Amino acid sequence: MSTDSAPARPAADRAWSVADVALIDEFVEGASGTAAVRNEAGWQQWSLVPRVFRDVRRISTAWTGFGLALRAPVLIAPTALGLVHPQGEREAARGIRAAGMGLVLSQGSTFPVAEVAEVSGPFLQQVYLTQRRDALWPFLDRAVDAGATALALTVDQPAAGVTLPFRASLARLAAPGARNLGNANFVGVPPADLALESRIELADIGLLADRTGLPVVVKGVLHPDDAVAAVEAGAAGVVVSNHGGRQLGGTITSAEALPRVVAAVGGRVPVLVDGGIRQGEDVLRALVLGADAVLVGRPAVRALRAGGADGLRAALETLRGELELAMALAGTPDLAAVTSLGIRHATQTPYATDTPRG
Amino acid sequence: MSTDSAPARPAADRAWSVADVALIDEFVEGASGTAAVRNEAGWQQWSLVPRVFRDVRRISTAWTGFGLALRAPVLIAPTALGLVHPQGEREAARGIRAAGMGLVLSQGSTFPVAEVAEVSGPFLQQVYLTQRRDALWPFLDRAVDAGATALALTVDQPAAGVTLPFRASLARLAAPGARNLGNANFVGVPPADLALESRIELADIGLLADRTGLPVVVKGVLHPDDAVAAVEAGAAGVVVSNHGGRQLGGTITSAEALPRVVAAVGGRVPVLVDGGIRQGEDVLRALVLGADAVLVGRPAVRALRAGGADGLRAALETLRGELELAMALAGTPDLAAVTSLGIRHATQTPYATDTPRG
Amino acid sequence: MSTDSAPARPAADRAWSVADVALIDEFVEGASGTAAVRNEAGWQQWSLVPRVFRDVRRISTAWTGFGLALRAPVLIAPTALGLVHPQGEREAARGIRAAGMGLVLSQGSTFPVAEVAEVSGPFLQQVYLTQRRDALWPFLDRAVDAGATALALTVDQPAAGVTLPFRASLARLAAPGARNLGNANFVGVPPADLALESRIELADIGLLADRTGLPVVVKGVLHPDDAVAAVEAGAAGVVVSNHGGRQLGGTITSAEALPRVVAAVGGRVPVLVDGGIRQGEDVLRALVLGADAVLVGRPAVRALRAGGADGLRAALETLRGELELAMALAGTPDLAAVTSLGIRHATQTPYATDTPRG
Amino acid sequence: MSTDSAPARPAADRAWSVADVALIDEFVEGASGTAAVRNEAGWQQWSLVPRVFRDVRRISTAWTGFGLALRAPVLIAPTALGLVHPQGEREAARGIRAAGMGLVLSQGSTFPVAEVAEVSGPFLQQVYLTQRRDALWPFLDRAVDAGATALALTVDQPAAGVTLPFRASLARLAAPGARNLGNANFVGVPPADLALESRIELADIGLLADRTGLPVVVKGVLHPDDAVAAVEAGAAGVVVSNHGGRQLGGTITSAEALPRVVAAVGGRVPVLVDGGIRQGEDVLRALVLGADAVLVGRPAVRALRAGGADGLRAALETLRGELELAMALAGTPDLAAVTSLGIRHATQTPYATDTPRG
Repeated sequence: MSTDSAPARPAADRAWSVADVALIDEFVEGASGTAAVRNEAGWQQWSLVPRVFRDVRRISTAWTGFGLALRAPVLIAPTALGLVHPQGEREAARGIRAAGMGLVLSQGSTFPVAEVAEVSGPFLQQVYLTQRRDALWPFLDRAVDAGATALALTVDQPAAGVTLPFRASLARLAAPGARNLGNANFVGVPPADLALESRIELADIGLLADRTGLPVVVKGVLHPDDAVAAVEAGAAGVVVSNHGGRQLGGTITSAEALPRVVAAVGGRVPVLVDGGIRQGEDVLRALVLGADAVLVGRPAVRALRAGGADGLRAALETLRGELELAMALAGTPDLAAVTSLGIRHATQTPYATDTPRG
Repeated sequence: MSTDSAPARPAADRAWSVADVALIDEFVEGASGTAAVRNEAGWQQWSLVPRVFRDVRRISTAWTGFGLALRAPVLIAPTALGLVHPQGEREAARGIRAAGMGLVLSQGSTFPVAEVAEVSGPFLQQVYLTQRRDALWPFLDRAVDAGATALALTVDQPAAGVTLPFRASLARLAAPGARNLGNANFVGVPPADLALESRIELADIGLLADRTGLPVVVKGVLHPDDAVAAVEAGAAGVVVSNHGGRQLGGTITSAEALPRVVAAVGGRVPVLVDGGIRQGEDVLRALVLGADAVLVGRPAVRALRAGGADGLRAALETLRGELELAMALAGTPDLAAVTSLGIRHATQTPYATDTPRG
Repeated sequence: MSTDSAPARPAADRAWSVADVALIDEFVEGASGTAAVRNEAGWQQWSLVPRVFRDVRRISTAWTGFGLALRAPVLIAPTALGLVHPQGEREAARGIRAAGMGLVLSQGSTFPVAEVAEVSGPFLQQVYLTQRRDALWPFLDRAVDAGATALALTVDQPAAGVTLPFRASLARLAAPGARNLGNANFVGVPPADLALESRIELADIGLLADRTGLPVVVKGVLHPDDAVAAVEAGAAGVVVSNHGGRQLGGTITSAEALPRVVAAVGGRVPVLVDGGIRQGEDVLRALVLGADAVLVGRPAVRALRAGGADGLRAALETLRGELELAMALAGTPDLAAVTSLGIRHATQTPYATDTPRG
Repeated sequence: MSTDSAPARPAADRAWSVADVALIDEFVEGASGTAAVRNEAGWQQWSLVPRVFRDVRRISTAWTGFGLALRAPVLIAPTALGLVHPQGEREAARGIRAAGMGLVLSQGSTFPVAEVAEVSGPFLQQVYLTQRRDALWPFLDRAVDAGATALALTVDQPAAGVTLPFRASLARLAAPGARNLGNANFVGVPPADLALESRIELADIGLLADRTGLPVVVKGVLHPDDAVAAVEAGAAGVVVSNHGGRQLGGTITSAEALPRVVAAVGGRVPVLVDGGIRQGEDVLRALVLGADAVLVGRPAVRALRAGGADGLRAALETLRGELELAMALAGTPDLAAVTSLGIRHATQTPYATDTPRG
């Protein structure tokens, strides 16, 4: 369905071969050029200016938005969770829920949305638009029924970026007897009906909202004008993202794009961001730059792969703990207070004015 | 004739010696100081800001200009094609035409212009001005007859930059019985008449245009004032170039020079650029910065050397494919649409305003 | 009491074990992320513009402030001096006084304030606020009696940053028979009364000043607004500091924060700075950027550990000698004259105007 | 006398020992911190924007100034020439004159000024001010008689920066029977009379000019205000210099200081520069930034040491050749034309305006 969620599950009685593992590895860690590396470095270029004289005896990282009430403003990006664990998105959902974080469920889940939702509780449903719009309706109806609180419409994958090498091998990755090949939500739908749309239009935002009655978050915006257009077309939020550095290799990083998008949106809807978020301080940097919440991708996939639901929960709790400590050290007891922090980019001359002496 | 096109062909029955190969290598890859390395790095300093909500179901990289209709805005710079393949420019022309790219044929071609043109189809003829202007007329007449659609007047080589080491060895590189020594277009002309001009004047633009009836593109401009002067003197286009980093070692890179030249020219004529273009994204970066098309040099020479016409065609098609993918991922279906993309230089603070907090 | 001053002294007849030494090492050198490294690099990004035609036959580095008359504007930050030498702060005080520098005595000293003061002479008393304010009064009364000339109220440690690993091992580090465990100033006070305050308020500045009759310097400010608030609340000085890079890892460096704080304070009170000061030129850089004096932490701990009082004195005298030489070379005979020096940050374009040619 | 010209000559029949050579090496190459390295890097941060359509058939690097007529705007800085060759400044003068460059003769020459002048022809005499001004008069009278055309008053060595390690060893470096120990110009003068002045005043410029009737160039200025003060006090020129990075380690580089000094001086007198000039392009960079001429130090010492007069001549001719080629490639036929070149600093965003897209 989508390179981002290409699913494949070995049966319980079958392990992946070394070659399979290498293939999965290449897919999970793959990126275009230097984009993923620059995403991480992009956050390091921002330095925080902490505040003092604040009451930080109790820190709250609690966040609510899009019908979710989370322990931290952290959601798990729609990624290939089903590719790295036999129990796929269900296993992931267990860990995410235990940690109190949010799930953005990939449309290409290896389990049907209802089966994931019974584990996850409220969630956001990611959507890849198909050329035949109505091919999505039955699936979206099931997502609504399953308790999706919002849609996350991916708009930045008009063409395939980083894909599984030897894509033909995907079938091999799937276990004998597996119910589906990354297509759990579209069993029986003719593949031709599921051809992805390369021409996503602003009107599709309203179309999806009308059909589902859910708020639609637009995921994959970097240019401020696109963010504004999406908001004016009815988007309930935007996610600043370069798709984990997997699409355009020469792209701006999300840490570079965020401030201008925030300024353009002007508070009309929440702005989220993903790409290169690796520690609690990165979350805080994003919040100070105006993000409402962040999405994490690869760190979640790695933790799920290494430790299943428990490993993922531990990774997310560590991230939340880091955020809590960073907030305490920065003098901001809750998410609303972050706007009072200062922040400085490495390209900025640290002068009060631009008139240095001599 | 010119260091850039110093030609030499071993006879069919004679291979280059190891020492010859090293000599050719040094010439092809040679550069002044760090200029060539910086040319490549210069493009990396620009990050693209992709657009979404665009119809990129069909991407067209098609370009027309100067009488050429190409599959991509890519021309092969006038380089030492004849030095790396026994069939020289004829072999190169075959590959270039197959890939649908444009040829800027070196004046110092190892084959007469007519013989290259019968393979290449329409092409641009590069011109090195000689001190005796009229020594060029017969050759230019033949170029016009052969189907040249425009001239590319090299103005940035008033003196020799990187040259063949042990230049005296050039004769040795030429095969026994070879018709000429890089002088195919000037057989029988006394060498003294072919002494290169170090004083190229603005009036020469009109002189060449009047003589040939062809548009004259000025190649090798970095300073905005020179670009404006050339346009006002009748140039039909300018090529921003530092001669592949082979002339002034401490030069500005073409990626740094381009935006200011584009601004100064103000759309009166097309602005082209070369230097360090290595992948499709570099082409897109140049287009977003205002270039109409790009020239590639060393990548074409290397591909011709390694694989002849087929190798060159494959390299150019890869480049075009990369451009097409980059355009799709950046949300721009054709070349006219690139102006809506954003671009950011590494020295720029990524703020909407210059007033960061704290 | 505080991570910064966690004290522990082996008895005279007992050496630290290898494991103990490693633990102490980790605590002294520990930092959050790259903050400590960036602190040092932060000063290197500033280049000085020396003056000539000055009378530098006699250089005076003499400084007075907060009741101290020092040979140089250098104070020793409140650090774990008691952790690295059996005679702790008394040994350190001997070296500091011999070098003519200033002591900012940690509240968590391993010797009672009176015992340190009889060696040190006038000193600044560092204060960590406790949740029960009045638990501090007896100790502060003794500090005043002992000759403290000012208080340094630490405001940037609302939560623990870098702490001793295996904190439970602290007891092991203490020698058998030691009078106290880093709590010399609070013998007999119930631990519950000494719980640190995470909600330091501006009113606490006045509270401490009123109780002790001493000027209160606020230590640990990075944001200009906090510096201004502290001054308006009655602070007699502010110390720009990120706590040696031991708290927020993604923090701005003190070298980056200083100029904006200086501009905001506008000369109303002295501004001091610490973090990454390693040589005389760093001191001069800080002074040129508007600091009145600097604090040094790790260099003093290392010197005390390596060479006791004599080693610390030698290190401080070297620092003063470097400052004196730098001032002579920079053309500034005394501290008042430093404001005439120029300074340039690595991000600044070295043009008189912002209009480069070409 | 001065660290910069500490002289010592082994007798003809005596070679330096390995330890002596190491000592000399350390002195010649020595620098404060990173200043010398940054001096060289400072020029690389400037990129030139060449011009075309210029008549560069004949390039003239000829320069006149301060009574000298040189083949290039290059003078040899007053350095320890006498320390690296038995024939010292006389040998150097031979090479410099043969290359058509200018000599700035160190006051601490190992040969009396008259003996150097009979080899060098017209030269500039460097002056270190002594506390007893009149101790200089006899020497300066001899310098005038010997043909000095201007004085270069060093103002940036109020205290010793990099000095010979184990300075006491200097006597050992001197050969048995040598006439003097780096004091050729002051034989018989009591050492106390030669104590260097740390308080150079603006009035000293006029004092020296009045005494000798020569123009006085002030050497060692980095701050624009000092340059202006010197000019207003009668200086006939200023040399932007940080003393080869041998004084203040944290100094601004000369390549960074030059543009602001040039702007401040506003053409009233010539501005020269030294520090890190290593190739012809560096000379051109300095000229484009507004320098009238450059001084070279270490390259000259190294060449003299390695090859005597012939080696020094060759090195200087190479430098001139590089400058000539760079000027041709940059489109500037003579020194007056360099002001039309563009130049760009690495910190500058290469936009025509500061309003990038997106």
